[in-house]
Amino acid sequence: MNDKMTHTAAPQLPEPTLRRLPWYLAYLSTLHDGSTEYVSTTRIAEALDVDTSQIAKDLSFLGIRGKTRMGYSVETLERTLQDFLGFGRRHNAIICGTGSLGAALIADSGLQHFGLNIVAGIDINPVLIGQRICDVEIFEPLQAAELVKKFKAVIGIIAVPVESAQAASDNLVSAGVHAIWNFTPSRIRVPEGVVISNTSIYSHLAVMYNRLNMQGQ
Amino acid sequence: MNDKMTHTAAPQLPEPTLRRLPWYLAYLSTLHDGSTEYVSTTRIAEALDVDTSQIAKDLSFLGIRGKTRMGYSVETLERTLQDFLGFGRRHNAIICGTGSLGAALIADSGLQHFGLNIVAGIDINPVLIGQRICDVEIFEPLQAAELVKKFKAVIGIIAVPVESAQAASDNLVSAGVHAIWNFTPSRIRVPEGVVISNTSIYSHLAVMYNRLNMQGQ
Repeated sequence: MNDKMTHTAAPQLPEPTLRRLPWYLAYLSTLHDGSTEYVSTTRIAEALDVDTSQIAKDLSFLGIRGKTRMGYSVETLERTLQDFLGFGRRHNAIICGTGSLGAALIADSGLQHFGLNIVAGIDINPVLIGQRICDVEIFEPLQAAELVKKFKAVIGIIAVPVESAQAASDNLVSAGVHAIWNFTPSRIRVPEGVVISNTSIYSHLAVMYNRLNMQGQ
Repeated sequence: MNDKMTHTAAPQLPEPTLRRLPWYLAYLSTLHDGSTEYVSTTRIAEALDVDTSQIAKDLSFLGIRGKTRMGYSVETLERTLQDFLGFGRRHNAIICGTGSLGAALIADSGLQHFGLNIVAGIDINPVLIGQRICDVEIFEPLQAAELVKKFKAVIGIIAVPVESAQAASDNLVSAGVHAIWNFTPSRIRVPEGVVISNTSIYSHLAVMYNRLNMQGQ
C-alpha cells in the first residue's frame, strides 16, 4: 500500500525506551564537531542523566553494539536511530482544524525533518475552504476519504476545538487513516487497530503550573 | 513577587491525576447545551473511558464533592477545575528561539486561553532582533535578565535547535525564570527548584511511527 511496507516491522518497544531514543539522537547531533568519531554510553549517560545500563539496553533494541573501550560509532548510531525511529521516512498526514494551533503545526517545518508531511487541511469554516496555509490546501470534512486516498495519508492530526475532537477523529478514521495524533485536551476514542497518540500541550501546562504553585511561584 | 503568591499553594498531586484533570475540563465544555446542570462520575467515565472510582479520587483532590444521585454541578466543577489547574491565571513567559516552532507557539492563541502569556522572544539571529511576531518583540539573549524583570516572566520556553537547548535554558534560568518548558527533543538539565516540563512532540511522532510500523503500515 505504501513504501513503508517494504521495511521490516519494528519490534514492540517499551514506550519509555521509544521516548528516550530521540534524546540520544538529539545528543548525537551536538557531536558534529568533526572530532568525535565514537561515543561511549558513559558519555551519553553524563550528558543526559540516564543510567549507562539503561542506555545499553535501549540501544540493544536497535540491533547495534558498541566496540569495547571505544563505544558506538556516532555516524552509524545516528543513522540507525534516524532510520529506526522513522524520521527518515515520509508519513503523509491530513490535519483537521486549521485555526490557530492547526495553522501553527502546518507552518512548523520541524515536523518535516522528523518525517511528517502534512498534505492537506480540513476545516468546517466555509471561508477557509480552498485557501492555502504554507502551500497546504484546505478542504471540507466531506472530502476526507477522497483526500486520504489521493495523498496516501496514514495519519490524521486533530487540532479542532474540544467539542468537535471525537467527530473529527471519527471522520478521519472512516476516511482510512491508521493513526490519530490528538492535539486537543480531549480524550479521543479510536477503533481497535488504529494508533492514537496524545500530545496535549495544555495538560503539560497544568502540570507545570501546579509545580510552580507548590513552590509559591 | 507576583499575584500568584496570594493563592493558596496547590497540594502535591500525582502527575497522572494532573494530566487527567484537563480531560474532565475538556469534557465539561462539551456539556454546554443548556440542559445539563449535573454530571455523574458514571457519565464522565463512559465518555472518557476512565474508572468511576479513579474519577472520584481525582476530583477529591479539588476539595469538591458530588451530590448523591445527582453528581457534580457542571458549572461549579468547571470553575473549580479551571481555577485549580491555573488556566484562569496569567503566567508570563519568554520564548527562546523564534524560528518555525517558536513562531508557531507565539501565534497559537490557544496558549493564552490556558493562562500562558508569551511576552517576549529571544533569538540569536541579528536579522530578527527588534522584529515582532504577532506583537511579541524579539530581543538578544543578553537581554534575558532585563526582560524577565520587566515582564515579571516566570516561565522560559525553549524552541531552539537541539545543540543550543541547554545553553538557552541556562541563560533563562540565570535570568530568573522558575520553570522551563522544553519543546526540543533534547534532554535539558535545570538546577534544583526549577520546574522542567518536556513537550517533545517529535518523540510522540517516534512512538506513533513505531506503532504504525508494527501494524505493517
